[in-house]
Amino acid sequence: MNTKVQEITEAFKFRHACKLFDKNRVIPEETFNMILEAGRLSPSSFGLEPWKFLIVQSKELREKLYPISWGAQNSLDGASHFVIILARKKIDTLYDSEYVNHILTDIKGFSPDVTEQFLKAYELFQKEGFKLLEGDRAIFDWASKQTYIALANMLTVAAMLGVDSCPIEGFVPEPINKLLEDEGIIDGKHFGVSVMAGFGYRAEEPHHPQTRQAAKDVIQWIK
Amino acid sequence: MNTKVQEITEAFKFRHACKLFDKNRVIPEETFNMILEAGRLSPSSFGLEPWKFLIVQSKELREKLYPISWGAQNSLDGASHFVIILARKKIDTLYDSEYVNHILTDIKGFSPDVTEQFLKAYELFQKEGFKLLEGDRAIFDWASKQTYIALANMLTVAAMLGVDSCPIEGFVPEPINKLLEDEGIIDGKHFGVSVMAGFGYRAEEPHHPQTRQAAKDVIQWIK
Repeated sequence: MNTKVQEITEAFKFRHACKLFDKNRVIPEETFNMILEAGRLSPSSFGLEPWKFLIVQSKELREKLYPISWGAQNSLDGASHFVIILARKKIDTLYDSEYVNHILTDIKGFSPDVTEQFLKAYELFQKEGFKLLEGDRAIFDWASKQTYIALANMLTVAAMLGVDSCPIEGFVPEPINKLLEDEGIIDGKHFGVSVMAGFGYRAEEPHHPQTRQAAKDVIQWIK
Repeated sequence: MNTKVQEITEAFKFRHACKLFDKNRVIPEETFNMILEAGRLSPSSFGLEPWKFLIVQSKELREKLYPISWGAQNSLDGASHFVIILARKKIDTLYDSEYVNHILTDIKGFSPDVTEQFLKAYELFQKEGFKLLEGDRAIFDWASKQTYIALANMLTVAAMLGVDSCPIEGFVPEPINKLLEDEGIIDGKHFGVSVMAGFGYRAEEPHHPQTRQAAKDVIQWIK
Protein backbone atom coordinates (compact mmCIF):
# COMPACT_ATOMS: atom_id res chain seq x y z
CA MET A 1 0.00 0.00 0.00
CA ASN A 2 1.48 3.37 -0.89
CA THR A 3 2.37 5.83 1.85
CA LYS A 4 -0.32 8.40 1.06
CA VAL A 5 -3.08 5.82 1.00
CA GLN A 6 -1.78 4.52 4.31
CA GLU A 7 -1.69 8.00 5.86
CA ILE A 8 -5.22 8.78 4.70
CA THR A 9 -6.52 5.44 5.95
CA GLU A 10 -4.95 6.11 9.34
CA ALA A 11 -6.62 9.53 9.52
CA PHE A 12 -10.02 7.94 8.81
CA LYS A 13 -9.42 5.33 11.50
CA PHE A 14 -8.18 7.96 13.96
CA ARG A 15 -11.24 10.20 13.56
CA HIS A 16 -14.15 9.53 15.86
CA ALA A 17 -16.73 11.72 17.56
CA CYS A 18 -14.61 12.76 20.53
CA LYS A 19 -16.66 12.52 23.72
CA LEU A 20 -14.16 13.92 26.21
CA PHE A 21 -11.63 16.60 25.33
CA ASP A 22 -8.44 17.34 27.21
CA LYS A 23 -9.15 20.80 28.64
CA ASN A 24 -5.47 21.61 28.93
CA ARG A 25 -4.45 21.18 25.35
CA VAL A 26 -4.74 23.96 22.80
CA ILE A 27 -4.50 23.45 19.04
CA PRO A 28 -1.47 25.35 17.65
CA GLU A 29 -2.41 28.37 15.55
CA GLU A 30 -0.98 27.05 12.28
CA THR A 31 -2.87 23.79 12.71
CA PHE A 32 -6.21 25.41 13.49
CA ASN A 33 -5.78 27.84 10.63
CA MET A 34 -5.37 24.89 8.28
CA ILE A 35 -8.60 23.38 9.62
CA LEU A 36 -10.38 26.68 9.00
CA GLU A 37 -8.87 26.93 5.53
CA ALA A 38 -10.23 23.46 4.76
CA GLY A 39 -13.67 24.90 5.50
CA ARG A 40 -13.18 28.15 3.64
CA LEU A 41 -11.69 26.48 0.53
CA SER A 42 -14.41 23.82 0.37
CA PRO A 43 -16.45 23.54 -2.80
CA SER A 44 -20.12 24.47 -2.75
CA SER A 45 -22.98 24.32 -5.23
CA PHE A 46 -22.49 26.93 -7.96
CA GLY A 47 -19.48 28.11 -5.93
CA LEU A 48 -21.67 30.31 -3.76
CA GLU A 49 -20.05 29.58 -0.38
CA PRO A 50 -23.36 29.98 1.47
CA TRP A 51 -21.75 29.80 4.90
CA LYS A 52 -20.00 31.49 7.76
CA PHE A 53 -17.77 30.03 10.46
CA LEU A 54 -18.10 31.31 14.02
CA ILE A 55 -15.24 30.37 16.30
CA VAL A 56 -16.63 30.54 19.81
CA GLN A 57 -13.75 30.99 22.23
CA SER A 58 -15.54 33.32 24.65
CA LYS A 59 -16.13 31.47 27.91
CA GLU A 60 -19.23 33.56 28.47
CA LEU A 61 -20.82 32.63 25.14
CA ARG A 62 -19.87 28.99 25.58
CA GLU A 63 -21.69 29.04 28.91
CA LYS A 64 -24.79 30.52 27.32
CA LEU A 65 -24.75 27.87 24.60
CA TYR A 66 -24.27 25.06 27.11
CA PRO A 67 -27.87 24.61 28.36
CA ILE A 68 -29.38 24.84 24.88
CA SER A 69 -26.97 22.50 23.07
CA TRP A 70 -27.10 19.09 24.71
CA GLY A 71 -24.92 17.49 22.06
CA ALA A 72 -22.30 20.21 22.34
CA GLN A 73 -21.72 20.18 26.07
CA ASN A 74 -18.54 18.09 26.00
CA SER A 75 -17.12 20.32 23.30
CA LEU A 76 -18.21 23.58 24.91
CA ASP A 77 -16.59 22.43 28.09
CA GLY A 78 -13.33 21.01 26.87
CA ALA A 79 -12.63 21.60 23.21
CA SER A 80 -9.74 23.86 22.30
CA HIS A 81 -11.84 25.46 19.56
CA PHE A 82 -15.60 25.46 19.15
CA VAL A 83 -17.09 26.18 15.73
CA ILE A 84 -20.65 27.03 14.73
CA ILE A 85 -21.22 26.76 11.00
CA LEU A 86 -23.95 29.05 9.76
CA ALA A 87 -25.82 28.64 6.49
CA ARG A 88 -27.23 31.48 4.43
CA LYS A 89 -30.98 31.90 4.13
CA LYS A 90 -33.16 32.31 1.07
CA ILE A 91 -32.71 36.09 1.04
CA ASP A 92 -29.06 35.44 0.11
CA THR A 93 -29.23 32.21 -1.89
CA LEU A 94 -32.17 32.99 -4.17
CA TYR A 95 -31.18 33.38 -7.82
CA ASP A 96 -31.86 37.11 -7.93
CA SER A 97 -30.32 37.98 -4.56
CA GLU A 98 -27.78 40.68 -3.90
CA TYR A 99 -25.44 38.14 -2.31
CA VAL A 100 -25.40 35.82 -5.33
CA ASN A 101 -24.73 38.81 -7.54
CA HIS A 102 -21.89 39.91 -5.25
CA ILE A 103 -20.25 36.48 -5.43
CA LEU A 104 -20.50 36.30 -9.22
CA THR A 105 -19.36 39.84 -9.83
CA ASP A 106 -16.93 40.68 -7.06
CA ILE A 107 -15.55 37.27 -6.09
CA LYS A 108 -15.63 35.29 -9.33
CA GLY A 109 -15.15 38.38 -11.46
CA PHE A 110 -17.72 37.31 -14.06
CA SER A 111 -18.62 39.71 -16.84
CA PRO A 112 -22.28 40.83 -17.07
CA ASP A 113 -22.83 38.33 -19.93
CA VAL A 114 -21.43 35.37 -18.04
CA THR A 115 -23.33 36.43 -14.93
CA GLU A 116 -26.59 36.51 -16.89
CA GLN A 117 -26.04 33.02 -18.34
CA PHE A 118 -25.03 31.66 -14.96
CA LEU A 119 -28.11 33.13 -13.29
CA LYS A 120 -30.40 31.59 -15.87
CA ALA A 121 -28.99 28.14 -15.17
CA TYR A 122 -29.08 28.79 -11.43
CA GLU A 123 -32.73 29.92 -11.54
CA LEU A 124 -33.66 26.81 -13.51
CA PHE A 125 -31.78 24.63 -11.04
CA GLN A 126 -33.57 26.22 -8.09
CA LYS A 127 -37.02 26.13 -9.66
CA GLU A 128 -37.06 22.95 -11.72
CA GLY A 129 -33.96 20.98 -10.75
CA PHE A 130 -33.72 20.64 -6.99
CA LYS A 131 -37.04 22.52 -6.53
CA LEU A 132 -35.62 24.68 -3.78
CA LEU A 133 -38.46 27.17 -3.84
CA GLU A 134 -40.91 24.66 -2.37
CA GLY A 135 -40.43 26.39 0.95
CA ASP A 136 -37.97 28.31 3.11
CA ARG A 137 -36.81 25.09 4.71
CA ALA A 138 -35.93 23.43 1.40
CA ILE A 139 -33.64 26.23 0.29
CA PHE A 140 -32.08 26.61 3.74
CA ASP A 141 -31.47 22.85 3.97
CA TRP A 142 -29.81 23.03 0.58
CA ALA A 143 -27.42 25.75 1.77
CA SER A 144 -26.93 23.66 4.88
CA LYS A 145 -25.92 20.65 2.75
CA GLN A 146 -23.07 22.76 1.41
CA THR A 147 -21.94 23.51 4.96
CA TYR A 148 -21.65 19.75 5.54
CA ILE A 149 -19.00 19.70 2.81
CA ALA A 150 -17.06 22.32 4.77
CA LEU A 151 -17.71 20.42 8.00
CA ALA A 152 -16.41 17.16 6.52
CA ASN A 153 -13.26 18.79 5.23
CA MET A 154 -12.59 20.39 8.59
CA LEU A 155 -13.02 17.07 10.44
CA THR A 156 -10.86 15.15 7.98
CA VAL A 157 -8.09 17.72 7.83
CA ALA A 158 -8.13 17.88 11.63
CA ALA A 159 -7.67 14.10 11.79
CA MET A 160 -4.81 14.30 9.30
CA LEU A 161 -3.12 16.77 11.63
CA GLY A 162 -3.73 14.60 14.71
CA VAL A 163 -6.55 16.79 16.00
CA ASP A 164 -9.74 15.29 17.41
CA SER A 165 -13.17 16.63 16.69
CA CYS A 166 -16.84 16.18 17.39
CA PRO A 167 -19.49 17.09 14.81
CA ILE A 168 -22.70 18.23 16.48
CA GLU A 169 -26.38 18.22 15.52
CA GLY A 170 -27.50 17.91 19.15
CA PHE A 171 -29.26 21.25 19.53
CA VAL A 172 -32.53 22.97 18.73
CA PRO A 173 -31.80 25.59 16.05
CA GLU A 174 -34.30 28.28 17.15
CA PRO A 175 -32.86 29.11 20.60
CA ILE A 176 -29.31 29.03 19.19
CA ASN A 177 -30.29 31.49 16.47
CA LYS A 178 -32.05 33.68 19.01
CA LEU A 179 -29.03 33.72 21.31
CA LEU A 180 -26.66 34.60 18.47
CA GLU A 181 -29.01 37.37 17.37
CA ASP A 182 -29.50 38.73 20.89
CA GLU A 183 -25.71 38.81 21.30
CA GLY A 184 -25.44 40.81 18.09
CA ILE A 185 -23.32 38.10 16.46
CA ILE A 186 -25.55 37.20 13.53
CA ASP A 187 -28.23 38.84 11.47
CA GLY A 188 -31.02 36.28 11.57
CA LYS A 189 -32.45 37.53 8.30
CA HIS A 190 -29.35 36.23 6.52
CA PHE A 191 -27.95 33.40 8.62
CA GLY A 192 -29.09 30.44 10.66
CA VAL A 193 -27.17 27.75 12.51
CA SER A 194 -26.52 24.67 10.40
CA VAL A 195 -24.18 22.44 12.37
CA MET A 196 -21.46 22.71 15.03
CA ALA A 197 -18.14 21.06 15.81
CA GLY A 198 -15.63 20.95 18.61
CA PHE A 199 -11.90 20.59 17.89
CA GLY A 200 -9.19 19.63 20.35
CA TYR A 201 -7.47 16.58 21.78
CA ARG A 202 -9.02 13.45 23.25
CA ALA A 203 -8.71 12.97 27.02
CA GLU A 204 -9.34 9.23 26.66
CA GLU A 205 -9.47 6.61 23.97
CA PRO A 206 -12.88 5.99 22.34
CA HIS A 207 -15.12 3.63 24.32
CA HIS A 208 -16.35 1.85 21.21
CA PRO A 209 -14.46 0.58 18.19
CA GLN A 210 -15.25 2.32 14.91
CA THR A 211 -18.02 0.42 13.13
CA ARG A 212 -19.31 0.75 9.58
CA GLN A 213 -21.46 -1.34 7.29
CA ALA A 214 -19.44 -3.62 5.04
CA ALA A 215 -18.40 -2.27 1.65
CA LYS A 216 -20.70 -4.75 -0.09
CA ASP A 217 -23.69 -3.28 1.74
CA VAL A 218 -23.11 0.35 0.78
CA ILE A 219 -21.22 0.14 -2.50
CA GLN A 220 -22.80 -1.15 -5.68
CA TRP A 221 -20.95 -1.38 -8.97
CA ILE A 222 -22.87 -1.17 -12.22
CA LYS A 223 -20.48 -2.53 -14.81
CA MET B 1 5.02 25.69 7.16
CA ASN B 2 5.11 22.03 8.09
CA THR B 3 5.01 19.41 5.34
CA LYS B 4 1.55 18.05 6.13
CA VAL B 5 -0.05 21.49 6.17
CA GLN B 6 1.67 22.20 2.87
CA GLU B 7 0.46 18.92 1.32
CA ILE B 8 -3.12 19.54 2.46
CA THR B 9 -3.06 23.12 1.20
CA GLU B 10 -1.82 21.91 -2.18
CA ALA B 11 -4.66 19.36 -2.38
CA PHE B 12 -7.22 22.10 -1.69
CA LYS B 13 -5.66 24.31 -4.36
CA PHE B 14 -5.48 21.39 -6.82
CA ARG B 15 -9.14 20.47 -6.45
CA HIS B 16 -11.59 22.19 -8.76
CA ALA B 17 -14.78 21.12 -10.49
CA CYS B 18 -13.19 19.36 -13.45
CA LYS B 19 -14.96 20.35 -16.66
CA LEU B 20 -13.16 18.10 -19.12
CA PHE B 21 -11.84 14.66 -18.24
CA ASP B 22 -9.14 12.76 -20.09
CA LYS B 23 -11.09 9.83 -21.53
CA ASN B 24 -7.99 7.68 -21.80
CA ARG B 25 -6.88 7.70 -18.20
CA VAL B 26 -8.24 5.25 -15.65
CA ILE B 27 -7.86 5.64 -11.90
CA PRO B 28 -5.78 2.75 -10.49
CA GLU B 29 -7.80 0.32 -8.40
CA GLU B 30 -6.01 1.00 -5.12
CA THR B 31 -6.52 4.73 -5.55
CA PHE B 32 -10.22 4.49 -6.36
CA ASN B 33 -10.76 2.07 -3.51
CA MET B 34 -9.28 4.67 -1.15
CA ILE B 35 -11.70 7.27 -2.51
CA LEU B 36 -14.60 4.88 -1.89
CA GLU B 37 -13.32 4.10 1.58
CA ALA B 38 -13.27 7.82 2.34
CA GLY B 39 -17.00 7.78 1.58
CA ARG B 40 -17.76 4.59 3.42
CA LEU B 41 -15.80 5.58 6.55
CA SER B 42 -17.32 9.06 6.71
CA PRO B 43 -19.14 10.10 9.85
CA SER B 44 -22.88 10.62 9.79
CA SER B 45 -25.49 11.84 12.24
CA PHE B 46 -26.03 9.25 14.97
CA GLY B 47 -23.67 7.02 12.96
CA LEU B 48 -26.52 5.80 10.77
CA GLU B 49 -24.72 5.86 7.39
CA PRO B 50 -27.93 6.74 5.51
CA TRP B 51 -26.33 6.29 2.11
CA LYS B 52 -25.32 4.07 -0.73
CA PHE B 53 -22.69 4.57 -3.42
CA LEU B 54 -23.46 3.51 -6.98
CA ILE B 55 -20.42 3.29 -9.24
CA VAL B 56 -21.75 3.65 -12.76
CA GLN B 57 -19.24 2.14 -15.16
CA SER B 58 -21.76 0.66 -17.58
CA LYS B 59 -21.58 2.57 -20.86
CA GLU B 60 -25.24 1.81 -21.44
CA LEU B 61 -26.39 3.27 -18.13
CA ARG B 62 -24.14 6.29 -18.56
CA GLU B 63 -25.81 6.93 -21.90
CA LYS B 64 -29.25 6.72 -20.34
CA LEU B 65 -28.24 9.16 -17.61
CA TYR B 66 -26.72 11.60 -20.11
CA PRO B 67 -29.86 13.36 -21.39
CA ILE B 68 -31.38 13.73 -17.92
CA SER B 69 -28.29 14.98 -16.07
CA TRP B 70 -27.10 18.20 -17.72
CA GLY B 71 -24.51 18.87 -15.04
CA ALA B 72 -23.09 15.36 -15.32
CA GLN B 73 -22.51 15.16 -19.04
CA ASN B 74 -18.78 15.89 -18.95
CA SER B 75 -18.33 13.30 -16.24
CA LEU B 76 -20.56 10.68 -17.85
CA ASP B 77 -18.61 11.13 -21.03
CA GLY B 78 -15.07 11.22 -19.80
CA ALA B 79 -14.66 10.42 -16.12
CA SER B 80 -12.83 7.24 -15.19
CA HIS B 81 -15.41 6.57 -12.47
CA PHE B 82 -18.89 7.97 -12.07
CA VAL B 83 -20.58 7.88 -8.67
CA ILE B 84 -24.20 8.43 -7.71
CA ILE B 85 -24.65 8.91 -3.98
CA LEU B 86 -28.05 7.81 -2.76
CA ALA B 87 -29.66 8.89 0.49
CA ARG B 88 -32.05 6.80 2.52
CA LYS B 89 -35.68 7.83 2.81
CA LYS B 90 -37.89 8.26 5.85
CA ILE B 91 -38.88 4.59 5.87
CA ASP B 92 -35.27 3.83 6.83
CA THR B 93 -34.24 6.88 8.84
CA LEU B 94 -37.27 7.26 11.09
CA TYR B 95 -36.50 6.55 14.76
CA ASP B 96 -38.55 3.34 14.85
CA SER B 97 -37.43 1.95 11.49
CA GLU B 98 -36.09 -1.51 10.84
CA TYR B 99 -32.95 -0.03 9.27
CA VAL B 100 -32.06 2.09 12.30
CA ASN B 101 -32.59 -0.92 14.51
CA HIS B 102 -30.36 -3.00 12.24
CA ILE B 103 -27.54 -0.44 12.44
CA LEU B 104 -27.74 -0.18 16.22
CA THR B 105 -28.02 -3.90 16.86
CA ASP B 106 -26.05 -5.58 14.08
CA ILE B 107 -23.49 -2.94 13.12
CA LYS B 108 -22.84 -1.07 16.37
CA GLY B 109 -23.57 -4.13 18.50
CA PHE B 110 -25.57 -2.17 21.07
CA SER B 111 -27.33 -4.04 23.85
CA PRO B 112 -31.15 -3.70 24.05
CA ASP B 113 -30.75 -1.19 26.92
CA VAL B 114 -28.32 1.01 25.04
CA THR B 115 -30.46 0.77 21.91
CA GLU B 116 -33.52 1.91 23.84
CA GLN B 117 -31.70 4.92 25.31
CA PHE B 118 -30.24 5.80 21.96
CA LEU B 119 -33.62 5.63 20.24
CA LYS B 120 -35.19 7.92 22.82
CA ALA B 121 -32.57 10.57 22.13
CA TYR B 122 -32.88 10.01 18.39
CA GLU B 123 -36.68 10.34 18.46
CA LEU B 124 -36.38 13.58 20.44
CA PHE B 125 -33.80 14.87 17.99
CA GLN B 126 -36.04 14.08 15.02
CA LYS B 127 -39.21 15.47 16.56
CA GLU B 128 -38.07 18.43 18.63
CA GLY B 129 -34.45 19.07 17.68
CA PHE B 130 -34.07 19.30 13.93
CA LYS B 131 -37.84 18.80 13.44
CA LEU B 132 -37.33 16.26 10.69
CA LEU B 133 -40.89 15.03 10.73
CA GLU B 134 -42.20 18.28 9.25
CA GLY B 135 -42.37 16.49 5.93
CA ASP B 136 -40.81 13.80 3.78
CA ARG B 137 -38.51 16.32 2.18
CA ALA B 138 -37.10 17.54 5.50
CA ILE B 139 -36.04 14.07 6.64
CA PHE B 140 -34.71 13.15 3.19
CA ASP B 141 -32.72 16.40 2.98
CA TRP B 142 -31.27 15.62 6.40
CA ALA B 143 -30.08 12.18 5.20
CA SER B 144 -28.82 13.94 2.09
CA LYS B 145 -26.78 16.34 4.24
CA GLN B 146 -24.93 13.32 5.60
CA THR B 147 -24.14 12.20 2.06
CA TYR B 148 -22.45 15.56 1.48
CA ILE B 149 -20.00 14.62 4.23
CA ALA B 150 -19.17 11.46 2.28
CA LEU B 151 -19.04 13.45 -0.96
CA ALA B 152 -16.62 15.99 0.54
CA ASN B 153 -14.33 13.30 1.86
CA MET B 154 -14.28 11.55 -1.50
CA LEU B 155 -13.42 14.78 -3.35
CA THR B 156 -10.72 15.75 -0.88
CA VAL B 157 -9.12 12.32 -0.70
CA ALA B 158 -9.17 12.18 -4.50
CA ALA B 159 -7.33 15.52 -4.65
CA MET B 160 -4.78 14.26 -2.14
CA LEU B 161 -4.12 11.34 -4.46
CA GLY B 162 -3.85 13.57 -7.54
CA VAL B 163 -7.27 12.60 -8.86
CA ASP B 164 -9.64 15.18 -10.29
CA SER B 165 -13.34 15.23 -9.59
CA CYS B 166 -16.56 17.04 -10.32
CA PRO B 167 -19.37 17.19 -7.76
CA ILE B 168 -22.77 17.36 -9.46
CA GLU B 169 -26.17 18.76 -8.52
CA GLY B 170 -27.08 19.44 -12.15
CA PHE B 171 -29.96 17.01 -12.57
CA VAL B 172 -33.65 16.66 -11.78
CA PRO B 173 -33.97 13.97 -9.11
CA GLU B 174 -37.28 12.41 -10.24
CA PRO B 175 -36.23 11.10 -13.68
CA ILE B 176 -32.94 9.83 -12.24
CA ASN B 177 -34.79 7.93 -9.53
CA LYS B 178 -37.23 6.56 -12.09
CA LEU B 179 -34.43 5.38 -14.36
CA LEU B 180 -32.58 3.68 -11.51
CA GLU B 181 -35.81 2.00 -10.43
CA ASP B 182 -36.74 0.93 -13.94
CA GLU B 183 -33.27 -0.58 -14.33
CA GLY B 184 -33.79 -2.54 -11.13
CA ILE B 185 -30.82 -0.83 -9.46
CA ILE B 186 -32.58 0.85 -6.56
CA ASP B 187 -35.69 0.34 -4.52
CA GLY B 188 -37.32 3.76 -4.64
CA LYS B 189 -39.13 3.16 -1.37
CA HIS B 190 -35.79 3.20 0.42
CA PHE B 191 -33.40 5.28 -1.65
CA GLY B 192 -33.33 8.46 -3.72
CA VAL B 193 -30.52 10.21 -5.53
CA SER B 194 -28.78 12.84 -3.41
CA VAL B 195 -25.75 14.00 -5.36
CA MET B 196 -23.32 12.73 -8.00
CA ALA B 197 -19.62 13.01 -8.75
CA GLY B 198 -17.21 12.15 -11.53
CA PHE B 199 -13.64 11.10 -10.80
CA GLY B 200 -10.75 10.95 -13.23
CA TYR B 201 -8.01 13.12 -14.65
CA ARG B 202 -8.23 16.60 -16.13
CA ALA B 203 -7.76 16.92 -19.89
CA GLU B 204 -6.90 20.62 -19.55
CA GLU B 205 -6.07 23.09 -16.83
CA PRO B 206 -9.01 24.95 -15.21
CA HIS B 207 -10.17 28.00 -17.21
CA HIS B 208 -10.67 30.10 -14.12
CA PRO B 209 -8.47 30.59 -11.08
CA GLN B 210 -9.89 29.28 -7.81
CA THR B 211 -11.76 32.09 -6.05
CA ARG B 212 -13.10 32.28 -2.53
CA GLN B 213 -14.33 35.02 -0.23
CA ALA B 214 -11.60 36.37 2.03
CA ALA B 215 -11.18 34.72 5.43
CA LYS B 216 -12.37 37.91 7.16
CA ASP B 217 -15.69 37.67 5.31
CA VAL B 218 -16.53 34.09 6.25
CA ILE B 219 -14.73 33.57 9.56
CA GLN B 220 -15.73 35.37 12.72
CA TRP B 221 -13.95 34.90 16.04
CA ILE B 222 -15.85 35.43 19.26
CA LYS B 223 -13.15 35.76 21.87
